[in-house]
Amino acid sequence: MSLSLNQKTINRASLAEAVEVCARHGIEAIGVWREPLNDSGVERGAKLVRDAGLRVSSLCRGGFLTGDDTEAALADNRRAIDEAVALGTDTLVLVVGGLPPRSRDLAGARQRVATRIAELAPYAGEAGVRLALEPMHPIYCADRGVLSTLDQALDLAETFPEDRVAVVVDTFHVWWDPRVLPAIARAGARIAAYQVCDWITPLPPDALLARGLPGDGHIDFRTLGAAVTEAGYRGDTEVEIFHADVWAAPFDDVVAEVVRRFAST
Amino acid sequence: MSLSLNQKTINRASLAEAVEVCARHGIEAIGVWREPLNDSGVERGAKLVRDAGLRVSSLCRGGFLTGDDTEAALADNRRAIDEAVALGTDTLVLVVGGLPPRSRDLAGARQRVATRIAELAPYAGEAGVRLALEPMHPIYCADRGVLSTLDQALDLAETFPEDRVAVVVDTFHVWWDPRVLPAIARAGARIAAYQVCDWITPLPPDALLARGLPGDGHIDFRTLGAAVTEAGYRGDTEVEIFHADVWAAPFDDVVAEVVRRFAST
Repeated sequence: MSLSLNQKTINRASLAEAVEVCARHGIEAIGVWREPLNDSGVERGAKLVRDAGLRVSSLCRGGFLTGDDTEAALADNRRAIDEAVALGTDTLVLVVGGLPPRSRDLAGARQRVATRIAELAPYAGEAGVRLALEPMHPIYCADRGVLSTLDQALDLAETFPEDRVAVVVDTFHVWWDPRVLPAIARAGARIAAYQVCDWITPLPPDALLARGLPGDGHIDFRTLGAAVTEAGYRGDTEVEIFHADVWAAPFDDVVAEVVRRFAST
Repeated sequence: MSLSLNQKTINRASLAEAVEVCARHGIEAIGVWREPLNDSGVERGAKLVRDAGLRVSSLCRGGFLTGDDTEAALADNRRAIDEAVALGTDTLVLVVGGLPPRSRDLAGARQRVATRIAELAPYAGEAGVRLALEPMHPIYCADRGVLSTLDQALDLAETFPEDRVAVVVDTFHVWWDPRVLPAIARAGARIAAYQVCDWITPLPPDALLARGLPGDGHIDFRTLGAAVTEAGYRGDTEVEIFHADVWAAPFDDVVAEVVRRFAST
């Protein structure tokens, strides 16, 4: 597998800066985030990436489908699909959303995800974009993503054609799951993206910034990476880090370290 | 189900103080922790509890079976079994332990748990004490408990007789699991303890102190409690809170609030 720099790893960078740092370090693929893409203007941003000859391994992220305003959520996700088309990627990562405010109805929130994916899937299919459901670590179940395991994401994805709804395997989110290896095998051609970052301890005070560089934590990347390859995945490996120190460091230092870690883990 | 005060909820209290506060608030059962039990002397502590007429719903906790010093771990767990006997409880809660230092071998750590439970089960059986495996929220997989789901705990428990190895259902640890309801039904008579506390957001900076009073967070206690009852569990409901503000408050205020929350959730 080859390395893709997920843009979140250099969170302060504009898309133009991210494209330049990839070029300087010989990285051939990028995982683009919607906020910096829109900051640069979608068409101009897409041209920047295209002119640099970069593959776009994924667009992050649509989703947030569990709230009360269905139409706003669907409209935003259709815009995200359009942005994926503009970028020339067929993979839109979806973080499905947590419990609505003051709700304790987890089953209901999960049902909302299923209903709204069904409403989006035809639009995605016509655009040639796959909706890539990202199961999230249960630490985020209440406030970010009610899909908590790879098997659960697959139960939903498999109700749709393979070229419309797929899954993301992110090591941080799935490493603890006693069923992760059979679930990766089950996922097979539904794996639309493979993202790596490490589970570090002690957990930092802000749990959103707990995702460390591969090698700094407790995850066995060889076993998970081998399982993803064995399942037939031939796409890029996105290194996606959420960590205050990484985000504060100079972009070139971070990306040089990412390249080193990718080669050694 | 009736209320048991897990001693951790009033973390600063001695066992004598915990027994007294139960009496003042009409609470008939207590979940005892080993540290305050040993602080008071096991025989004296057991007499305190017995003289007050309190049921002991569980002893917390044995476990930590994943380290390199097998003999020390087994010896400590045999002492915990003896303490359960002294207290007159048949339930010893086990937090099985996380990854050994510098290890990324999660499968190996899980195998160590299975091997060492097999070594302890006969001793527990002869003492009339059940080893109650506590599946822990995946947030603690690396550093506290490599059993991450109720199904996984049951896969292990079911390799032993029902009266020797059982499970704990703790709402905080299992609420997010898409398979929690069928897993509770599967657990049936293997449920040795039912513990309640809430998942609160935002997660406090110290993730060990993220367990709030029922009603303060996102967990649907009615559904989980009904499932536990439907599975045949007739024991106490332990309220077990890990939260800095709760631990700082006067014991009587905390316990009065626990009694109110127990009645209303």
